[in-house]
Amino acid sequence: MRQKPTVLAREIVASSRLFRVEEVQLRFANGVERTYERLVNRGSGYGAVMVVALVDSEHALLVEEYCVGTDNYQVSLPKGLIEPGEDVLLAANRELKEEAGFGARQLEHVTELTLSPGYMTQKIQVVLASDLYPESLPGDEPEPLRVDRINLRELSSLVQQEQFSEGRALAALYLVRDLLIQRGAFAL
Amino acid sequence: MRQKPTVLAREIVASSRLFRVEEVQLRFANGVERTYERLVNRGSGYGAVMVVALVDSEHALLVEEYCVGTDNYQVSLPKGLIEPGEDVLLAANRELKEEAGFGARQLEHVTELTLSPGYMTQKIQVVLASDLYPESLPGDEPEPLRVDRINLRELSSLVQQEQFSEGRALAALYLVRDLLIQRGAFAL
Repeated sequence: MRQKPTVLAREIVASSRLFRVEEVQLRFANGVERTYERLVNRGSGYGAVMVVALVDSEHALLVEEYCVGTDNYQVSLPKGLIEPGEDVLLAANRELKEEAGFGARQLEHVTELTLSPGYMTQKIQVVLASDLYPESLPGDEPEPLRVDRINLRELSSLVQQEQFSEGRALAALYLVRDLLIQRGAFAL
Repeated sequence: MRQKPTVLAREIVASSRLFRVEEVQLRFANGVERTYERLVNRGSGYGAVMVVALVDSEHALLVEEYCVGTDNYQVSLPKGLIEPGEDVLLAANRELKEEAGFGARQLEHVTELTLSPGYMTQKIQVVLASDLYPESLPGDEPEPLRVDRINLRELSSLVQQEQFSEGRALAALYLVRDLLIQRGAFAL
């Protein structure tokens, strides 16, 4: 591992209800100095969680909701922010109940993914949920989400759907598929 | 496709050199009103590009660079912003030359991925590069990037490396692997 650059100065240069931008002045090991900006979540430290929920041996749940970033309805995995003090697996189960109307008797942490490590501090925990049962919790969604499913054999076709585009959700689905293959629980 | 919410108001509420935050007031089809924030890139419209560059029939190039977002050295795919008016494939080739020291004789657009469509407008184009040859271009990096490679059979082991975490890069690698399998150019 290379020697990390030295932080010469840090300052919050823009701030809103959800986002904060921090300017960071760095000196690299070779003496080169640079000023970068990075996005730091407000009240972060708890992070977010994304759930690959298996409805049977080969299908995972997807949810469709309006996304203001891309200004359209998008299909992706159930996900949301972890609440202060909340356990990662419990947060995953809560989001699954709120967004998809299912609880899971089996919950397992798979990995942590970053969004854009060059510009953003955000990390998300990938959780595998299985042994599902119907249970709904009221969430903060403005309208009910539509629940869909994807066959794990057809992951590469997801991006051909106009409504699916989220890179990290696709990575989570592929990782879970590989995990199931390694365990002998799934075959392509 | 459901009826999209009506935009009642939009306003830039925070701004820095790299980032802008827009507040958007919406009325959903069921009458519920919500105010959201989304990140909109400054001077965007050109977007970004990420390159899966094949060095042989089973290995893709990775680059290691310091990432201020996560404050550590991270391994990921060569990527960068598309310049005003620049063709996507030419942008991919330029980034490959700047970051990894290779040009590609074959370049092919694979798909478009979003980062976090619920909160961000950002999109990135995934390009498959092959038939490589050594060529370097000076980039804007503060220090040379270390160039590495990954065997496409070992994608699920990437996230076990402390230095790899970027969800969209992993998705791009899996998608290219599936594409090569579909074409009979690769077998697991």
